[in-house]
Amino acid sequence: MRSIVYLIGAGPGAPDLITLRGFHCLQQASVVIYDHRVHADVLQYAPAQAERIDVGGAAPDASAQDAICYLIAEKAREGKVVARLKRGDSFLFDHGGEEALFLHEQGIPFEVVPGVPSAIGASAYAGIPITYPGGGDTVTFVRGFDDDGRERTRLDWDHLAGLGGTMVCNAGPKQLPKMIEALVAHGRPADESAAIIVNGTLPSQRTITGTLAELAKAVEENPVGAAILIVGRVVNFREHLRWFDSRPLFGRRALVMHSKEQPDDVAALLEQQGAAVLLDTDAGIDVYRQLLDRKVDVVTFTSASAVLGFLASVGADQASDLLAHTVVATLGPAAADAVTRANVTPAIQLPGGSLTAFADAIAAHFAPKAP
Amino acid sequence: MRSIVYLIGAGPGAPDLITLRGFHCLQQASVVIYDHRVHADVLQYAPAQAERIDVGGAAPDASAQDAICYLIAEKAREGKVVARLKRGDSFLFDHGGEEALFLHEQGIPFEVVPGVPSAIGASAYAGIPITYPGGGDTVTFVRGFDDDGRERTRLDWDHLAGLGGTMVCNAGPKQLPKMIEALVAHGRPADESAAIIVNGTLPSQRTITGTLAELAKAVEENPVGAAILIVGRVVNFREHLRWFDSRPLFGRRALVMHSKEQPDDVAALLEQQGAAVLLDTDAGIDVYRQLLDRKVDVVTFTSASAVLGFLASVGADQASDLLAHTVVATLGPAAADAVTRANVTPAIQLPGGSLTAFADAIAAHFAPKAP
Repeated sequence: MRSIVYLIGAGPGAPDLITLRGFHCLQQASVVIYDHRVHADVLQYAPAQAERIDVGGAAPDASAQDAICYLIAEKAREGKVVARLKRGDSFLFDHGGEEALFLHEQGIPFEVVPGVPSAIGASAYAGIPITYPGGGDTVTFVRGFDDDGRERTRLDWDHLAGLGGTMVCNAGPKQLPKMIEALVAHGRPADESAAIIVNGTLPSQRTITGTLAELAKAVEENPVGAAILIVGRVVNFREHLRWFDSRPLFGRRALVMHSKEQPDDVAALLEQQGAAVLLDTDAGIDVYRQLLDRKVDVVTFTSASAVLGFLASVGADQASDLLAHTVVATLGPAAADAVTRANVTPAIQLPGGSLTAFADAIAAHFAPKAP
Repeated sequence: MRSIVYLIGAGPGAPDLITLRGFHCLQQASVVIYDHRVHADVLQYAPAQAERIDVGGAAPDASAQDAICYLIAEKAREGKVVARLKRGDSFLFDHGGEEALFLHEQGIPFEVVPGVPSAIGASAYAGIPITYPGGGDTVTFVRGFDDDGRERTRLDWDHLAGLGGTMVCNAGPKQLPKMIEALVAHGRPADESAAIIVNGTLPSQRTITGTLAELAKAVEENPVGAAILIVGRVVNFREHLRWFDSRPLFGRRALVMHSKEQPDDVAALLEQQGAAVLLDTDAGIDVYRQLLDRKVDVVTFTSASAVLGFLASVGADQASDLLAHTVVATLGPAAADAVTRANVTPAIQLPGGSLTAFADAIAAHFAPKAP
């Protein structure tokens, strides 16, 4: 490959919301230069031997931004294929434009790979259609600022508040209340619907809805981290359209151990129930590490070979300690026997049945109990 | 798989600008219900046996939209995994919200897979950073209408024109001049920079830039098809940042015949030069059909085995006829000999050298000749 810089938008958060194009460019990269808000799993798409360089947050000051530009250019001049990875889309309120202009001035070829903007992803996963007939004919994306002390955005608040429609903004914890306050001061009704979404599209997604006045109060009392603010009537649809954070396994991480005898369809079934699924066959998955760090809520075994694969990867004498804080689920007697022989007691033990029934049993185990 | 409806945004046009998540959902689909603005190659991501249903354009009238909702629900009730595919993002000025609400009312599970909005993709591929420091702190997406006779968008033109920043809009051919006229009438300067992008992100992408006044005149005189309108100072960066439609092989389609002896890296090298690359090993590629339809500008052979593969797939007696209107490029004596024996004369014939030199020779062949 000839040297080139790919300016890639990694998408709104979830690693599989990057584009196929972005994925393919990463696979060709010899250097990955990334903002630390990019999900660690996205970095796994690059070859194992690729150099990976974390250049920090999304709002570097001017000198830090210059340093990033020089770093990208230097790596390209060494003949590398450089993947410059940012959260969301590189050209939407980020420094992609400045980096592209720098590369142009240096005569370095580049390509821009667009990404799903963070606000588009977060609203989709919160069940908020960012537009809806009757909900206005405009969506306005407003530049947000991290709380880095830089000059506040010089918005034309009167026109912004007067425009109506939907308004979205990425905002830091300190700016969020100011943003809401300014919108109300310039004419958006205090009882207008709004939502604040933190960690959009991720298993840790959290959404707060209310009127502008309620949200202003809520974030004053309990500050949230960097968030997406959505203002407009469309927020009211969340009540009906939330599909992601209402699933029984939402926020749960499932480790599906590969079985020679069974297809991995159980992964898709658990995903449908809302789980974030890890396959032990995925590149870069360290089963031992995941369990040691207690990042796994449930481990599934659908055959004896799956259990043997597990014991081979973590060591037979470690198995029961590693699984002590995780729900173990087995399907069929062979898997249950093999697990039991390793001194592990499955919390979910289905004697047989379909993979669908198995996934349902796991979902039921984690579902809130009826009072 | 349990029945579910995936509301998938296919992205702005190019088939590889769909998300990985969208791609994986399509792979699981048993029915694909798509708008005809979705690129045909995206449909190839679904299994060959999946049912494919074209439900027409992006702006169905109310009864057509009802029919689409019922169709989706019916397929889901039959137990199918339904992929509902739209261009861009389903929730941004499309009917995704209405379809999701219908599914909710019918008790049918669904998932929303966001997509790169058409305007985000088109601006990235036109070399226009949709935001830039100094170019304003807002981007406003305005609902566009196809020219279907429905009521014109009831925009708050004063606030929209007064807000400044960047404004983007998907607009049909008749609405485009009205849109520009209204913006100027309500205060956007007639000499403000703007761009019209047709077929954004595709090999057929076409971009017109000028002042609002110039563009209004241009589209009155030569109407364009459905387009993206971008208004704002950021358009001026295109002069420096265009990277896609300035590549030597932009708009050219290359068919790379797989070689047992050589890796397919020539595909990546040709893509870097701007070509749209087809591999004969890609699922769903019909080499014969592509050549018959004259959709291929250049065919590359890097070994004798590649030529043999070609002859096997189209028939040896068809080869010279099929290749009569296409540039044939060979690397190395073995490929050249094998092609010549099939009565085909390569227009580009490199005796040897690197794949990079080969890709450069192809690019040079198509580059505009110096006067």
